Amino acid sequence: MSLHGDYDSQNIFAQIIRGDAPCYKLYEDDDVLAFLDVFPQSYGHSLVIPKRSAARNMLDIDSESLCKVMQVVQKITRALVDELQPAGVQVAQFNGAPAGQTVFHIHMHVIPRFAGEDLGIHASAKADAAELEALQARLVTRLKA
Amino acid sequence: MSLHGDYDSQNIFAQIIRGDAPCYKLYEDDDVLAFLDVFPQSYGHSLVIPKRSAARNMLDIDSESLCKVMQVVQKITRALVDELQPAGVQVAQFNGAPAGQTVFHIHMHVIPRFAGEDLGIHASAKADAAELEALQARLVTRLKA
Repeated sequence: MSLHGDYDSQNIFAQIIRGDAPCYKLYEDDDVLAFLDVFPQSYGHSLVIPKRSAARNMLDIDSESLCKVMQVVQKITRALVDELQPAGVQVAQFNGAPAGQTVFHIHMHVIPRFAGEDLGIHASAKADAAELEALQARLVTRLKA
Repeated sequence: MSLHGDYDSQNIFAQIIRGDAPCYKLYEDDDVLAFLDVFPQSYGHSLVIPKRSAARNMLDIDSESLCKVMQVVQKITRALVDELQPAGVQVAQFNGAPAGQTVFHIHMHVIPRFAGEDLGIHASAKADAAELEALQARLVTRLKA
């Protein structure tokens, strides 16, 4: 592993962007896609990724894509706060496996924090599909409001 | 505490922006300031803040300031990687005290991760001034390269 390296076009997020793998989509435009993390660290854990930038991490994303991603991070944060009323929200982005990165297409985590609840360990448990679908529906409605 | 609330112009980062409090400055332009965290979670822990946006968090920063902040986050990340050669880098932004926010002027953390080293607990120990000065000098030189 290295912070510098080639982009693997078979990573799961590249597959999702191409439509070759499914996701619980929350928002999409020409440049950015947001969807629910299927191994959530908390209820509402969402991911925001650039669609046009074959970037592994913060070192190699172009600045225009980064701006567009962050505008959607803001949109998703607001929707999560309005819909789920968490006590707080953590935004995080990991570069390199030792920093917690598991998929090597740059992604921003948006993680609601609820009072009295510790974060789950990422990728330790897959969320229930029906629960994800119900949450997706609530957030998509909120994002359109 | 609430995610929604008034901006307190006496917070420490507002004082730093006004020049009323010191910082170990890494980078500054008309819109953005970057400096070393004096309670670092790892060697090189840096903070990036907007200067013109009186924003507490991701809910109320204007999108132009957010873009400019992220461009400097990218610049600082690259400098930290080049200069300190960490195994990874975590970028994080906390909204609300239950999410870990301690200063209510929006700020991005850029936290290098080194192999075999866990993160320190934030605000548990103030870094040595001479060490911060030496690190500041290295990073400022790297940022100008």
